[in-house]
Amino acid sequence: MDHIKLIRNKIDINHIHQLIIDQSCGACSVFVGTTRDHFEGKKVISLEYEAYESMALKEMGKICSELRIRWPTLKHIAIYHRLGSVPVAEESVVIAVSAPHRPAALESVSFAVDKLKSSVPIWKKEIYENDQIGEWKANMECPWPQFTETSSNAFEYSLCKIERQVENISESKLVQIRTSSNN
Amino acid sequence: MDHIKLIRNKIDINHIHQLIIDQSCGACSVFVGTTRDHFEGKKVISLEYEAYESMALKEMGKICSELRIRWPTLKHIAIYHRLGSVPVAEESVVIAVSAPHRPAALESVSFAVDKLKSSVPIWKKEIYENDQIGEWKANMECPWPQFTETSSNAFEYSLCKIERQVENISESKLVQIRTSSNN
Repeated sequence: MDHIKLIRNKIDINHIHQLIIDQSCGACSVFVGTTRDHFEGKKVISLEYEAYESMALKEMGKICSELRIRWPTLKHIAIYHRLGSVPVAEESVVIAVSAPHRPAALESVSFAVDKLKSSVPIWKKEIYENDQIGEWKANMECPWPQFTETSSNAFEYSLCKIERQVENISESKLVQIRTSSNN
Repeated sequence: MDHIKLIRNKIDINHIHQLIIDQSCGACSVFVGTTRDHFEGKKVISLEYEAYESMALKEMGKICSELRIRWPTLKHIAIYHRLGSVPVAEESVVIAVSAPHRPAALESVSFAVDKLKSSVPIWKKEIYENDQIGEWKANMECPWPQFTETSSNAFEYSLCKIERQVENISESKLVQIRTSSNN
């Protein structure tokens, strides 16, 4: 089963581990991304995350599908990403899988972390000790446009550098995205 | 810090995660080995693990040292292995690390799992539905001798296929091992 979630509360590692454990599996692999207290020499107080939620969930679902094609023995997959403020040492993202044997579990989680960073439209803002305002940044590996006050409400296709991904989305799905981004 | 433990109770994933979390780190990677309900077409009820405890702890410590040489940015490492009976779906081994960035965390855990399977003298016995007696087995990847009733109390060097490792152990350390295996 795939468990995909964007949440605004603390992520419970034990809960996610329980979601993926299975009697038929001998291996679970879990990656946890946490807020680091420094970035480029500056002291970080917290990170803030925002997302195009519908598109982010869709991309997280695509990651699950790709993992299942590449590692067909995977049993359960969980991808949780926290939104809003994430203080230092707390979890922003958890990716966890279970599989009968360890190579599939270990390799698929590494692949999923890279894929999440490069394909899921989630932006982060570093809140520094001496600069509480910060600036929204796309993940360096991600081709999605910069986050702006307007782009949080309406997807700005003119800024979009992700022609390849957009081409793959059917007309009906594009309508769906526009609808949900106005919520 | 390195946290190395052989325990006879359930392993608490959340506890281990708390041990390795650090403010300076943005990534934690955790591998969990669990008892699978089948092996070669037979229904498994539980696995039993036994170890040369002093030698197993020593080898687990060597894995930590090797990880720190290969990935110098690692902050905390935890390697917990359960001994005794481990029912289906429960955790037998947990390896967890924290690092500032994700490549070190992900790669080092994969390396450590392989290393643990190939170098730590822990034996397992599968208890099947229709065969409750089972047979002690060394890990298929491990060069340590088979576990026997006598070898649980005295290390049988005559059975040992691990000349390379034995050569690396100083005389004083060999005395230490013999002493503790009589406990």
